[in-house]
Amino acid sequence: MTNTQVTLVQLDNYGPWTVTPSPRREVDLQTMQSRMYADLSQAFGMRDGYVFFTRFDNMIAVTNGLDLEDHARIQESVRNRYPVTVSLSMGTGPSPADALVDATAALQDQGSAQDADRREALLGQPIPEAERTDDDVQIAHFDVVDATGTYTDQLDAFSSFAHIEQGYATLMRYMHDAHDSLSFFVGGDNIIAVCPDLSTADYADAIDHVSATAGVDVRVGVGRGTSAHDAGMGAKHALEDARDHESDVEVLPEP
Amino acid sequence: MTNTQVTLVQLDNYGPWTVTPSPRREVDLQTMQSRMYADLSQAFGMRDGYVFFTRFDNMIAVTNGLDLEDHARIQESVRNRYPVTVSLSMGTGPSPADALVDATAALQDQGSAQDADRREALLGQPIPEAERTDDDVQIAHFDVVDATGTYTDQLDAFSSFAHIEQGYATLMRYMHDAHDSLSFFVGGDNIIAVCPDLSTADYADAIDHVSATAGVDVRVGVGRGTSAHDAGMGAKHALEDARDHESDVEVLPEP
Amino acid sequence: MTNTQVTLVQLDNYGPWTVTPSPRREVDLQTMQSRMYADLSQAFGMRDGYVFFTRFDNMIAVTNGLDLEDHARIQESVRNRYPVTVSLSMGTGPSPADALVDATAALQDQGSAQDADRREALLGQPIPEAERTDDDVQIAHFDVVDATGTYTDQLDAFSSFAHIEQGYATLMRYMHDAHDSLSFFVGGDNIIAVCPDLSTADYADAIDHVSATAGVDVRVGVGRGTSAHDAGMGAKHALEDARDHESDVEVLPEP
Amino acid sequence: MTNTQVTLVQLDNYGPWTVTPSPRREVDLQTMQSRMYADLSQAFGMRDGYVFFTRFDNMIAVTNGLDLEDHARIQESVRNRYPVTVSLSMGTGPSPADALVDATAALQDQGSAQDADRREALLGQPIPEAERTDDDVQIAHFDVVDATGTYTDQLDAFSSFAHIEQGYATLMRYMHDAHDSLSFFVGGDNIIAVCPDLSTADYADAIDHVSATAGVDVRVGVGRGTSAHDAGMGAKHALEDARDHESDVEVLPEP
Ligand SMILES: Nc1nc2c(ncn2[C@@H]2O[C@H](COP(=O)(O)OP(=O)(O)OP(=O)(O)O)[C@@H](O)[C@H]2O)c(=O)[nH]1
Ligand SMILES: Nc1nc2c(ncn2[C@@H]2O[C@H](COP(=O)(O)OP(=O)(O)OP(=O)(O)O)[C@@H](O)[C@H]2O)c(=O)[nH]1
Ligand SMILES: Nc1nc2c(ncn2[C@@H]2O[C@H](COP(=O)(O)OP(=O)(O)OP(=O)(O)O)[C@@H](O)[C@H]2O)c(=O)[nH]1
Ligand SMILES: Nc1nc2c(ncn2[C@@H]2O[C@H](COP(=O)(O)OP(=O)(O)OP(=O)(O)O)[C@@H](O)[C@H]2O)c(=O)[nH]1
Ligand SMILES: [Ca+2]
Ligand SMILES: [Ca+2]
Ligand SMILES: [Ca+2]
Ligand SMILES: [Ca+2]
Repeated sequence: MTNTQVTLVQLDNYGPWTVTPSPRREVDLQTMQSRMYADLSQAFGMRDGYVFFTRFDNMIAVTNGLDLEDHARIQESVRNRYPVTVSLSMGTGPSPADALVDATAALQDQGSAQDADRREALLGQPIPEAERTDDDVQIAHFDVVDATGTYTDQLDAFSSFAHIEQGYATLMRYMHDAHDSLSFFVGGDNIIAVCPDLSTADYADAIDHVSATAGVDVRVGVGRGTSAHDAGMGAKHALEDARDHESDVEVLPEP
Repeated sequence: MTNTQVTLVQLDNYGPWTVTPSPRREVDLQTMQSRMYADLSQAFGMRDGYVFFTRFDNMIAVTNGLDLEDHARIQESVRNRYPVTVSLSMGTGPSPADALVDATAALQDQGSAQDADRREALLGQPIPEAERTDDDVQIAHFDVVDATGTYTDQLDAFSSFAHIEQGYATLMRYMHDAHDSLSFFVGGDNIIAVCPDLSTADYADAIDHVSATAGVDVRVGVGRGTSAHDAGMGAKHALEDARDHESDVEVLPEP
Repeated sequence: MTNTQVTLVQLDNYGPWTVTPSPRREVDLQTMQSRMYADLSQAFGMRDGYVFFTRFDNMIAVTNGLDLEDHARIQESVRNRYPVTVSLSMGTGPSPADALVDATAALQDQGSAQDADRREALLGQPIPEAERTDDDVQIAHFDVVDATGTYTDQLDAFSSFAHIEQGYATLMRYMHDAHDSLSFFVGGDNIIAVCPDLSTADYADAIDHVSATAGVDVRVGVGRGTSAHDAGMGAKHALEDARDHESDVEVLPEP
Repeated sequence: MTNTQVTLVQLDNYGPWTVTPSPRREVDLQTMQSRMYADLSQAFGMRDGYVFFTRFDNMIAVTNGLDLEDHARIQESVRNRYPVTVSLSMGTGPSPADALVDATAALQDQGSAQDADRREALLGQPIPEAERTDDDVQIAHFDVVDATGTYTDQLDAFSSFAHIEQGYATLMRYMHDAHDSLSFFVGGDNIIAVCPDLSTADYADAIDHVSATAGVDVRVGVGRGTSAHDAGMGAKHALEDARDHESDVEVLPEP
């Protein structure tokens, strides 16, 4: 059974900062946001975690293996290098969606995202080291079939993007509502979903739904592991298998 | 009348690179992609351009004021600092959507996005300096009304994101199909659209459409200028006016 | 005759910040400092300027071609993305050393580097566009002869570094005292000097001095141009010529 | 007794790359080098290591606590995000200088720094976890007394730098030759030395030597710990004590 540790990363009181004393240059905001995301990606990644950019002012991470001290250090490193600070809130459980519900609620209890007095909250408890297992994290790596031939080389760049975006929007809602999963666009034509213990049939369903609703053909590789990195790398290898076998769903290690 | 100069930035043969010789760590890909975007944001931004991350492997920039040499330098700087290279293709015209169609077609003519032999294409012609005017770029900065109170502080972080994402998906399709505009999510609850010469009524329409279809309330500030930065900063100030006046659409400078 | 525009970049009140409220992690300070340097290098570089890291809390740039607005934008971009701010002060003149004396004095007049009330000074006047010439900047790129064979592959890494450092210390003092030049270590075994109008004999002298005093053999390529980049790229090509001809000094374009 | 684990980071075949096919823009090289250093600083730092920029093409790290897998991951992350690769070689022992001698020799055995066939060497063995103690790392943080009042606010920026540089050059040689220590300039007026088990009298000696030889007054805080971070943070607090007590040498925890 999965036991995902999810961390919500929320920039503290960021909206007001963007317009104080007057609106800041958009290119600087974009640079600051994407660099913070890149830094968090390396910082969580050094300990086998994943983080997704989501809204950039609210990012979602899978942090199995990172304890409170690791979180505190990442929080401190942001404070030491950026003009803004972050709050971090952890939730855990078999359902990634529910774990995030808990993490969010704990942070909301401390005050609003735009509360000038709520800074650098550090909330929640990691999964105790002794309770961690090889099945804690399940990650599904979805990929559009022949995106280059179907979209990139055929349509204008915005229309290509619009199709992929529509595929993503459809998939993310379905996986959330039907399967308690958190799905994130990670660039190109790729979507990574953090899932509970789903079956091959569940994934096949999701793929059919996206094809029927958005007209976009995807395949998926699924991996499991003790950390986001382990599960995610399994998913990538499974996806390569799916490409090789021209199959829709592959799971590694096989159940 | 607007005359937008759009540049398509396409990573060369990037898909194969991500899995050669075997799948690369996702956190490294994320870091590499978001840092390249951050760098391009500063590089185009130093000359008053804007760039949007879009798919990360295909980014779209508004580059009025940047000539071929500026583009070549940016291309060279990527080559000197990244393991991958980029192709750049410019298109211009009153319709941003059409300008991008031209830019994309020119690049497709040179070969596939996954053609190992097509590297560092540099295509298209910038608007001649003598033809540039103060009305060349129109930018609309859309923002969700009270996103903090309605979503961020109320729902779990993924559901908040899903609502904003749905608002974005609806708006981006409408603005593209009805108004030849290119709209991009820029983080938080903000969407920036690159538009032709639209009226206040056109923007009001789009806002109504998003409210009716996705149930998300947005307002918009619109700016015009000789560059993306000028127009975009006007849009930000107009948005502040809209917040102050609690209005839906504000335009600066007033027509 | 040269007419170098030098800009002093000074972090505002940085010392106190590093220990408030208690000493900050060294790795974060190192990251912050080196990233700011990298950013300034790109920002000045987009407009053909050079910046040297020097002390990191005080950096020295060659900014021929950048006006006050360019400086202001760079200052603003730092403010928008870093937890600290910078002051900028320009000086100009035929002697790079004297130009920096003027730039420093103007900034000192505004208050101490550790004055909490002196923030984001922006001082000095750029060379008027009409007065700029192709000879304004002279740059010498010094390089240790066969550093790999003599040091890197022979000695332990610290001893190699100590030799190169000693060569640098000797050269930088000689070039400053004898030739009003500002010399900077730029990594590896390379030193870049910003010089007034020096002759081939002057450079040969300096090389002899370093060889006699520090026992380190260097050669140099010299370039001239309207900007740091133009002169610096000339110097690099001249250095390649010196390697090819096994000569000590090469100048491009030949006088 | 100390037992320092030192890692030599060497860019593979970097010199030829900088001029292939023709000399690369200096600003891009500077950006690439300083960003790689910043990244390594975070990567080693996440596991309590320190890295020093040294020559940038050869960097020296203190890596107590990082095992081979950690090193391999850092090496992979560089490969995934930069146009160049790095070799890593570890040495250990009571003398930091000797540990580096071993690390360097092992790497030299694999081929030249400019050998096109020697890529991504990963050499040496970390200190076994069971042998690590609280005294393994001794770090001394040297700082110029009132650098702001004596230099920065008084002299021109280059002359200030030249004085500090001279202090550094003198200190680094003395600490290496007399005390088997590796000293690195870390910006501003700060020097961090990685030392064997030195006494307060040893440090006092070094300070006297720098004052007598280079005319630069420094004080030092010394810390000990199981990692570079622990020892380094102790050194920073000791330095604050030295400032408070106006003493020359402070050691934490007191022996
Ligand atoms: N984040 C991420 N993006 C990837 C990865 N692999 C590929 N991509 C992206 O996906 C885009 C398309 O590449 P592919 O999926 O290989 O190409 P395709 O044409 O769809 O071909 P097939 O997927 O093999 O049918 C690339 O430009 C990348 O942006 C990955 O591992 N992670
Ligand atoms: N890219 C970008 N994002 C912004 C900007 N201003 C705000 N944001 C984002 O928008 C989020 C929400 O902030 P606001 O829009 O100020 O907050 P709100 O609760 O919606 O309040 P109102 O918009 O004033 O009704 C922030 O966390 C930022 O992520 C901006 O200028 N550019
Ligand atoms: N900043 C900078 N550093 C360079 C440049 N070219 C080389 N280097 C550095 O110099 C180091 C040594 O390379 P080379 O100078 O090519 O090697 P060498 O063994 O001294 O050989 P020769 O100089 O050809 O005699 C490299 O590792 C780089 O760090 C450059 O253009 N700029
Ligand atoms: N790398 C690093 N640099 C520091 C640190 N603290 C200060 N600095 C640098 O040192 C410079 C001078 O600051 P201080 O040493 O506080 O100033 P000072 O005038 O010498 O005053 P005292 O040292 O208190 O006598 C700053 O601008 C920083 O560049 C630190 O912890 N690490
Ligand atoms: Ca695909
Ligand atoms: Ca809003
Ligand atoms: Ca050399
Ligand atoms: Ca000091």
